[in-house]
Amino acid sequence: MEEESLIEKFDKILSNAKIYEYGKYPVKGCGIWLPYGFELRQNVLKIVREILYRTGHKEVLLPLLIPKDMLEKEAKHIAGFLEQVYWVTKGGTTRLDIELALRPTSETAMTHVFKDMISSYRDLPLKVFQIVSIFRYETEATRPMIRVREVTTFKEAFTFHESKEDAFKQFQEAYSIYSEIFDKLGIPYITPERPSWDRFPGAEITITFDTVLPDGKTLQIGSIHYLAQSFSKVFDAKFMKKDGSYDWLYMLSYGISERVIASLIIHYADEIGAVLLPSIAPIKIVVVPIFYEEYKNEVLNYAREIKDAIELAGYSVVIDDDPDKTPGEKFYEWERIGVPLRIEIGPKEMKESKVTLTDRLRRKKTVEKEKMFKEIKNMLNSLEIDLREKIKNEMFSRILKVKTTNELEKVLNDKKVAMFSICSDEKCGMKVNEMVKGAKFIGYDVKNKEKGNCIACGKETDKIGYLARKY
Amino acid sequence: MEEESLIEKFDKILSNAKIYEYGKYPVKGCGIWLPYGFELRQNVLKIVREILYRTGHKEVLLPLLIPKDMLEKEAKHIAGFLEQVYWVTKGGTTRLDIELALRPTSETAMTHVFKDMISSYRDLPLKVFQIVSIFRYETEATRPMIRVREVTTFKEAFTFHESKEDAFKQFQEAYSIYSEIFDKLGIPYITPERPSWDRFPGAEITITFDTVLPDGKTLQIGSIHYLAQSFSKVFDAKFMKKDGSYDWLYMLSYGISERVIASLIIHYADEIGAVLLPSIAPIKIVVVPIFYEEYKNEVLNYAREIKDAIELAGYSVVIDDDPDKTPGEKFYEWERIGVPLRIEIGPKEMKESKVTLTDRLRRKKTVEKEKMFKEIKNMLNSLEIDLREKIKNEMFSRILKVKTTNELEKVLNDKKVAMFSICSDEKCGMKVNEMVKGAKFIGYDVKNKEKGNCIACGKETDKIGYLARKY
Repeated sequence: MEEESLIEKFDKILSNAKIYEYGKYPVKGCGIWLPYGFELRQNVLKIVREILYRTGHKEVLLPLLIPKDMLEKEAKHIAGFLEQVYWVTKGGTTRLDIELALRPTSETAMTHVFKDMISSYRDLPLKVFQIVSIFRYETEATRPMIRVREVTTFKEAFTFHESKEDAFKQFQEAYSIYSEIFDKLGIPYITPERPSWDRFPGAEITITFDTVLPDGKTLQIGSIHYLAQSFSKVFDAKFMKKDGSYDWLYMLSYGISERVIASLIIHYADEIGAVLLPSIAPIKIVVVPIFYEEYKNEVLNYAREIKDAIELAGYSVVIDDDPDKTPGEKFYEWERIGVPLRIEIGPKEMKESKVTLTDRLRRKKTVEKEKMFKEIKNMLNSLEIDLREKIKNEMFSRILKVKTTNELEKVLNDKKVAMFSICSDEKCGMKVNEMVKGAKFIGYDVKNKEKGNCIACGKETDKIGYLARKY
Repeated sequence: MEEESLIEKFDKILSNAKIYEYGKYPVKGCGIWLPYGFELRQNVLKIVREILYRTGHKEVLLPLLIPKDMLEKEAKHIAGFLEQVYWVTKGGTTRLDIELALRPTSETAMTHVFKDMISSYRDLPLKVFQIVSIFRYETEATRPMIRVREVTTFKEAFTFHESKEDAFKQFQEAYSIYSEIFDKLGIPYITPERPSWDRFPGAEITITFDTVLPDGKTLQIGSIHYLAQSFSKVFDAKFMKKDGSYDWLYMLSYGISERVIASLIIHYADEIGAVLLPSIAPIKIVVVPIFYEEYKNEVLNYAREIKDAIELAGYSVVIDDDPDKTPGEKFYEWERIGVPLRIEIGPKEMKESKVTLTDRLRRKKTVEKEKMFKEIKNMLNSLEIDLREKIKNEMFSRILKVKTTNELEKVLNDKKVAMFSICSDEKCGMKVNEMVKGAKFIGYDVKNKEKGNCIACGKETDKIGYLARKY
């Protein structure tokens, strides 16, 4: 019930704000990025790309179709995806000789392609990524952006290394990159290392970035996998080392998807609709002229003058001069789509050469036209900072520290995530994993090294674990 | 034979320049965009997007999968694609209830999605586009970028209108947009209106942008279709008109693909390799220090100083300071990938505080360091202009005006396109269409209105037609 209400609310926000249309297209689990949402998506991807380029990742584009035998090469990998793969079996009216998978992820294709382009240690490390659609035939209930059958915004990075040490260094870099991306976007997160029974198929280490949504359930928004040589061995992807001998490539993969955009919208939304941070909002400012018959043209002219000046100053701004709507209707519409700042201009403002600014938290200020630019800057800045702070605090208030397993169920049922000391013994993890129906032990925090006694066996430990309900 | 040699040459250029890898991936007709090629692709798409945004087109993203019944709604449309559609029939190990097509084009999906978002004339015109992969199970021989099974770079625009007149106005705009795109990219073209038997499936009018490649064969690089109400009627996509009555939407679609990039590379290439226009080259300048043991460090330092200064001035520049390669090897490598300008720095340049500039046409100049920026700008400008002029002249020299049908075969066998006066009678077009084996009547030029006598019936006409071998 609670879960449904969060997703229902999310779906309504997406639809009201014309961000993403979900549920009407006649293929289950497939959504549509509408123009405003597409722009938001581009703003998010711009941040992702800039950081990846700066850190030496090159962008590529590989085929969507993966032949069955290629996908099947790594046994654990295919076992992990077998139930979720879409298969193309016909071309025109011809049955295909070999079935083609719609890529569920690209480890196999990437290994196949780049093994030929890496001959020696001189070509290493190689860091590539692509932003593409991936496909999963989800049998669980689908949800807009969060659990879809076509993930339309999958950023998957793949890196190739000459040694385990170098791969581990890259693991650190990937961790920093994702931290920077989520920090820049204003999405708070925790970073558990997944327990052995819950890793990416084919990986030796998996850490994830998880955010805790308002209903207390976690949403995985990023993951980093140390693949070791599992793919390079089955694809015989070898390179020449400095000493002239040969070895298989060490590999990592790391991915994020449109869940990043989902979590942004869900975290920041209020009872009216979307709330977009000024840093990523497609429209930063809306100018609303308030008509009274007597001054209609003067007010409209003044509003247009203001709008043009703001545009010249480099802000993306629109004016809503629709004569058929009341100011109240307009305020509501623009708030629903999450525009950070509204500028009202009525006869009073016009006569006094002023403007009235209202931010998305409804904080209001009337200033002289000359001081407008300074005030716009200030208000957008404070809004950015205050919203971020608010969401961060809210998210961390949804994580409760517990000392005994008895407390777990209550915490989970209070729509929170439980945090506790736990040792690295798999038995202890497994024990916690089975404590609360529907909840899972999501792993050991890679950052938090607080000392305590293991919740399961009582032994001293510096590990912190999490039990959570997951999306 | 001749055809193979052009494509073989093209394939070799792509591979040597590490633009696009074709033929090694184990799904026929699927290529890989390598980092350098991906950057070139982004530079081309940037131009496409800017022009579409400026002219009020909004970017969207629709699902890749189209259910069979949706695709089958428009009878002519599906008839045109039936042999070319890839079908997904299984999800995991489950047979799907309804087969899903990998989109071959998106008219049906777009009509389905946007009919709900358009209720009245106030919502019109609506202009959207997406840049996506489309799929065609090509049974003809596939060729890199030109005839592939996954077209990875398909820009498809769709517009919705309240009247035929408004749709026709949009037809003009689409024509201007494509002209501007190809002009900006430096691709010369002709614009035939396709004869009735060679239109896009479901369209009432189709005009194309075709370029004539060095082997005299035409490559279609863009097309604009007037769809009238053919899709809106079968999807019952109605809107309210100003007078309160209802009508079906009028629609256009227009598309371009990675063939644009193929034609750029093919037209401009020389015997060494790729030649990229400065306006779209991912790397504009390469600095090559020329080592002599005695001055090695000084030369290297000077070269690095020059490189940094050029970078600061805003050019994308690289330095090739590999000590294991000769200058000649370096020159060759950077020429093969099409870098417009090379700067050589040897002991002489260092001692005299000079630099030696060589453009991709091997025009050389040595200038004082202080005059370097001005010279770089000049040389890149002239290179841009001279290359464009050269390619335009070359392409139009491949089109020969003929007066009688007797001349057609000779012209086509001379690796040229034949141009002639022709009347609008379908019989005359059909007659020419069957004149030369392997060649096709590609249509009536929409721009060229030169008067003459129809090549087939002798009647006076202001239409010009083309007979060509096509890719």
